[in-house]
Amino acid sequence: MTRPSIDATHDIHLQSWVDSANRPDTDFPIQNLPLGIFRRAGSEEAFRPGAAIGDQVLDLLALRDAGQLTTEAAQALAGTGDGSLNALMARGGGASLALRRCLSEGLREGAAQQPQWSSALLPQAEAEMAVPARIGDYTDFYTSIHHATAVGRMFRPDNPLLPNYRWVPIGYHGRASSIGVSGQRFRRPLGQSKRPDEASPVLRPCERLDYELEMGIFVGRQNALGEPVPMGGAEAHLFGLCLFNDWSARDIQAWEYQPLGPFLSKSFASVVSPWIVTMEALAPFRCAFERAEGEPAPLPYLDSPDNRDAGALDIQLEVWLQTERMRSQGQPHQRLMQSNFRDSYWTVAQLLAHHTVNGCNLRPGDMFGSGTQSGPDTGQGGSLLELSDGGRQPLVLANGEQRGFLQDGDSVMLRGRGQREGFRSIGFGACEGRVLPAFLPA
Amino acid sequence: MTRPSIDATHDIHLQSWVDSANRPDTDFPIQNLPLGIFRRAGSEEAFRPGAAIGDQVLDLLALRDAGQLTTEAAQALAGTGDGSLNALMARGGGASLALRRCLSEGLREGAAQQPQWSSALLPQAEAEMAVPARIGDYTDFYTSIHHATAVGRMFRPDNPLLPNYRWVPIGYHGRASSIGVSGQRFRRPLGQSKRPDEASPVLRPCERLDYELEMGIFVGRQNALGEPVPMGGAEAHLFGLCLFNDWSARDIQAWEYQPLGPFLSKSFASVVSPWIVTMEALAPFRCAFERAEGEPAPLPYLDSPDNRDAGALDIQLEVWLQTERMRSQGQPHQRLMQSNFRDSYWTVAQLLAHHTVNGCNLRPGDMFGSGTQSGPDTGQGGSLLELSDGGRQPLVLANGEQRGFLQDGDSVMLRGRGQREGFRSIGFGACEGRVLPAFLPA
Repeated sequence: MTRPSIDATHDIHLQSWVDSANRPDTDFPIQNLPLGIFRRAGSEEAFRPGAAIGDQVLDLLALRDAGQLTTEAAQALAGTGDGSLNALMARGGGASLALRRCLSEGLREGAAQQPQWSSALLPQAEAEMAVPARIGDYTDFYTSIHHATAVGRMFRPDNPLLPNYRWVPIGYHGRASSIGVSGQRFRRPLGQSKRPDEASPVLRPCERLDYELEMGIFVGRQNALGEPVPMGGAEAHLFGLCLFNDWSARDIQAWEYQPLGPFLSKSFASVVSPWIVTMEALAPFRCAFERAEGEPAPLPYLDSPDNRDAGALDIQLEVWLQTERMRSQGQPHQRLMQSNFRDSYWTVAQLLAHHTVNGCNLRPGDMFGSGTQSGPDTGQGGSLLELSDGGRQPLVLANGEQRGFLQDGDSVMLRGRGQREGFRSIGFGACEGRVLPAFLPA
Repeated sequence: MTRPSIDATHDIHLQSWVDSANRPDTDFPIQNLPLGIFRRAGSEEAFRPGAAIGDQVLDLLALRDAGQLTTEAAQALAGTGDGSLNALMARGGGASLALRRCLSEGLREGAAQQPQWSSALLPQAEAEMAVPARIGDYTDFYTSIHHATAVGRMFRPDNPLLPNYRWVPIGYHGRASSIGVSGQRFRRPLGQSKRPDEASPVLRPCERLDYELEMGIFVGRQNALGEPVPMGGAEAHLFGLCLFNDWSARDIQAWEYQPLGPFLSKSFASVVSPWIVTMEALAPFRCAFERAEGEPAPLPYLDSPDNRDAGALDIQLEVWLQTERMRSQGQPHQRLMQSNFRDSYWTVAQLLAHHTVNGCNLRPGDMFGSGTQSGPDTGQGGSLLELSDGGRQPLVLANGEQRGFLQDGDSVMLRGRGQREGFRSIGFGACEGRVLPAFLPA
């Protein structure tokens, strides 16, 4: 089995000498230890790898340079001085596990390292984060059958799900250059769209701007071109997960997407949360991969006993919205929905095995989007398209404002959390982005 | 106007002291000077930038290090020691023009530099070439209305062209990791497909493997996220062109592509020619962008006087095939078809302006595929899908072999050439790749 196991680093009783990591509501207790790329905000310092602990960032290269890491953990970090986690990702699970164990021991309450390690902490509030990897290729999947059905119903009321959906983990290539990190501000895109009453299309600002609640899945160890990764080895090529909002221009998409798929409706901006929660940290939140009665079994190349037992991930996901007016009146974000990644129709191992079955090479730092994670119930749509029934039934917010689609000034925040009885709950931090007005050339 | 002009480097009377560059049939006379990345074959040397001249490669960093380049040309090459042309591409047209002028003067018959420059030559037969850029994102367009119509007719006989085609330069994101350089050998991909008589799909080797005759278009200077490039400035963001074969698995594509577009049917391999012919070299082959009577005018953001005058490129394209049997009997490749890039429905400037209109940032080294370049006439299909009418009318080769789709051992070679009265004709070199048998796990 190539999936990371539960070990002493997951012990619910572990506490850290970093006090904020012991608060019940923190996303980053000592059982999490997610990795990111940071520098001191407002500085011209080089971006470098860090681990989140409570409300602090631990500077990993500073620790290494001070001789504070185990040999294995120091080796795991070699090459990460380039401002990305790619070199660590390339080494595979052994390296991230060594780093995790070293950090867990050094941050533990009573650790002898506390005096030296304290000086390598920076409050997260004073850190500027970067996209944690150089994403070579980004692939967006479509793993929620609830999302695919809801969206399909708008186009084909009698036949919402296409015949291939239950067999193929549907995915398409996405744009890597416009992926930013939480805190992203982006202009409402211009694009061609055609209203039903128009004879020909018009270039104008997007009128149906939306978010998509997704998970980002980072590839670790690469596979060579021409060499598929079988299910039994797929988990060994995964590094970790983050939150991912794949902003979408629905009107541009509707006009452009046939026959080759979405293009400019997606490539103007996307946003990841800055912290990658490693596959090691997620070990307690694995759960059985189960499908509803009557669904077909996956083809053999997408099936394995381990995947059936524990291929899925129990991660609760949420979308929060703050309008310009709410912000100006000091009101926080309002939660719009909740869903869970365990309801995905395909597991992360299946996505990787499928992606490589044709021989496609995945490189360290490549990212998959999970596709919009909508749940089975009403109100669990992972996009405004679903929650507002294509804009026909605008959401009414607590302050009386209405939203069919996003308005300028709207801030969308994704949240995610792993929870399981007997284990410390861990979170993903925030994935936030805000819409700015369109760029209108003079 | 941002488009490079015709200047003294295009003079038809120029001859080089490299004799092979003066042969009438060479792709690389002194008027061409395409750029690539090479090293001595069989060596462990670092890959480095070179220019093709006749049957030789000129080692540009060796010349620079020997103080043989003008200051401007030397500066243009700064940063290219990383084994890619990205740093040069990032500098924009001024840098490539300075380099071109310097090379043209130094390689000219009678140039005083001949003794020193001679020692920086390596026969192309002794060079190993690399993909010339780190391609961050690759976008595939669909610019041949003849290809789109022919393919559309197979699916929708009465309505071959979708309503958006004449308005939107249709494109989609592609996979960068599996792009290789001429000489590529790749395994026939495995994938899900479903024959008409099957109740459910089966994983098997592709049964309808095809090539696609395309041009590769490299981005030079970047644009910032959120800042569209207008038509008037689009040419200043283009670096040059190569040949591009986007291998396609038609049976996998037919089953997987709805609703989000082609994915594993494309991502197993693609191949570029090693030499990038710069926009400067292509100046003589510009021609008017004209559309047939009755076609709509492009929307204003895709239109400019300069584009109408000279937005198109007159580049003759060809596909050549050599089967395993032909190779074993010493027979060369056989030409299957010819078409011309000037028949593209959209110009390269329009592709760039459209790609950025939503604010998408293009980075140096990003590549566009033009889409399959089929011509208006019978026999001008840029893929076997078209030439064999979806496999129903296999091509009969000169030796009696038949091809509906590609067989294991088939080698496909693309060729391209710019020709114009009063100018020296220039070529793109070969873009060759060969199909190996599928990888079948034990």
